[in-house]
Amino acid sequence: MAQVKNALLRSGILVVFVAISLAGALAQTDPLPSWNDTAPKKAIIAFVEKVTKDGTSDFVPVDQRIATFDNDGTLWIEQPMYVQLAFMIDRVKELAPKHPEWKTTQPFKGVLEGDMKAVAATGNKGLDQLMAATHSGMTVEEFEKIVTDWLATAQQPKFKRPYTQCVYQPMLELLAYLRANGFKTFIVSGGGIEFMRPWTEKVYGIPPEQVVGSSLKTRFEIVDGKPELLRLPEINFIDDKEGKPVGINQYIGRRPIAAFGNSDGDQQMLEWTAEGDGQRFMLLVHHTDAKREYAYDRESSFGRLDKALDEANARGWTVVDMKKDWKVVFPPGI
Amino acid sequence: MAQVKNALLRSGILVVFVAISLAGALAQTDPLPSWNDTAPKKAIIAFVEKVTKDGTSDFVPVDQRIATFDNDGTLWIEQPMYVQLAFMIDRVKELAPKHPEWKTTQPFKGVLEGDMKAVAATGNKGLDQLMAATHSGMTVEEFEKIVTDWLATAQQPKFKRPYTQCVYQPMLELLAYLRANGFKTFIVSGGGIEFMRPWTEKVYGIPPEQVVGSSLKTRFEIVDGKPELLRLPEINFIDDKEGKPVGINQYIGRRPIAAFGNSDGDQQMLEWTAEGDGQRFMLLVHHTDAKREYAYDRESSFGRLDKALDEANARGWTVVDMKKDWKVVFPPGI
Repeated sequence: MAQVKNALLRSGILVVFVAISLAGALAQTDPLPSWNDTAPKKAIIAFVEKVTKDGTSDFVPVDQRIATFDNDGTLWIEQPMYVQLAFMIDRVKELAPKHPEWKTTQPFKGVLEGDMKAVAATGNKGLDQLMAATHSGMTVEEFEKIVTDWLATAQQPKFKRPYTQCVYQPMLELLAYLRANGFKTFIVSGGGIEFMRPWTEKVYGIPPEQVVGSSLKTRFEIVDGKPELLRLPEINFIDDKEGKPVGINQYIGRRPIAAFGNSDGDQQMLEWTAEGDGQRFMLLVHHTDAKREYAYDRESSFGRLDKALDEANARGWTVVDMKKDWKVVFPPGI
Repeated sequence: MAQVKNALLRSGILVVFVAISLAGALAQTDPLPSWNDTAPKKAIIAFVEKVTKDGTSDFVPVDQRIATFDNDGTLWIEQPMYVQLAFMIDRVKELAPKHPEWKTTQPFKGVLEGDMKAVAATGNKGLDQLMAATHSGMTVEEFEKIVTDWLATAQQPKFKRPYTQCVYQPMLELLAYLRANGFKTFIVSGGGIEFMRPWTEKVYGIPPEQVVGSSLKTRFEIVDGKPELLRLPEINFIDDKEGKPVGINQYIGRRPIAAFGNSDGDQQMLEWTAEGDGQRFMLLVHHTDAKREYAYDRESSFGRLDKALDEANARGWTVVDMKKDWKVVFPPGI
């Protein structure tokens, strides 16, 4: 018998036993350890278990498990201003010597004088102008390098660390949990698509082709015998508010079954997601934690959450109270 | 000993042996059985083996194995006219009673009178007008149903079968072979993105979010309390010629390492692909088989292959001679 047992052990039975034990252990592991055991976590897990349970009316085939995430304020920090605006400010200062007219023209004047109220007063139009002026005039590869270099040295002013480390640990776990359950995760952000693509795969596990965002036009041209894509100072698409369902349809071509945001810019994406058939999941992150991050909503210049919060409350969408529902905000140990 | 042997067999050793044998058998299976053993097949396999061989300078990580395919004339038939044009013609006839002005305006007049020369004379601008007029005025879901219903009954005139069965068997094998080797396969077509997305997953294994094409603008609107995406009679993007690298950059956000086309509309996509670092693969399908499909190139109204053929020959890109290089054209047994 000992001989048989040894043979069994040496062969494969042991491997099978170990595999089964591991599978059991993994099934019992908490997929969302940075979430408190409050309503949002329970709602997320209940939703995922429903849509992945084969043979029920709630089951959703893998190829239709599309989840879309806003970026600014949903996956990473957006205070004291959008990260991309901090990037634009640095770019304006760098490019200013070549643009003397900026000294007298808003929003550039405000940026150069540090008058952010004047910049804010120019609204989305001003942001578009800043994007067009600072994100164009180079090839797509050159711009990718500019973004990568900037992110490598820029620091978030309150937390004194790179912006790519000011991402939300609970949301990283949520992304991984959804993917482990067959979801394809997309970013659908008002931010610039080429400001995000250089780093989203490394930071979020979301590859460039699953990033939807605002963009400038580009032009294909043969430069010195070499084909190049040149970035033009002209808005191609604004992926915000009503633009989010439009962008989802244009890039992804199917309706998400789950959508995650944090501001009025995400309201239409959540409405569009909610309207489909079958199980749906809509979530807003409410920034309520002035100590560990920031507290802001209805009056904020960046990431204002007002009408979407009312709609979420009225329709029973999940609202994360950052202070109560998240054990940690940023990845620990960085 | 017999006891030990039985235990071994029952346990897992046998499974391991069977697995190894199967792996061997699979490795020896021809991945491209509908391709003759001529230069294109050899070039494809040599390329795939190079970029997937870890530890060599030619190795390409899985996430960068992006392959882009034109659709019309590369994956499915484009004669005697683009399939989408056949669809537009049927739509024009259907919608004509509501548009009396079409009786006197090209390209609509030509369509209604069956005068395809007059339609062709209006060029790409005429095609854009037809697309805008026949693909708009409904929600995105309604349009998807119109396309699906049309394809279910429309027949290719020469082969008397649905267009979705006039796809190229060797290219289906190529798509599967690339995916089995870690490639992500995309369509990058001048055709309408929402004319393709309803069926590409079923026919090619390419999901909607990996389809890039020409598009109309859409508008998000709350209609009777329900959020809808309405299709507008306005061109959003033309994904052809110089537009293909632009579309690749916009939708995929990285440069392909392999690109497959068949006409001058694909020339810039192949140039853009060729220009990247490392191993690259560029292929054109040359339609040389008047009997089994069609023979056309430099003079064709649809899928003209002229400048791109010269460039392919000059630069050593792979050119498939359909008559010589393909054992079969369409999926057998349909």
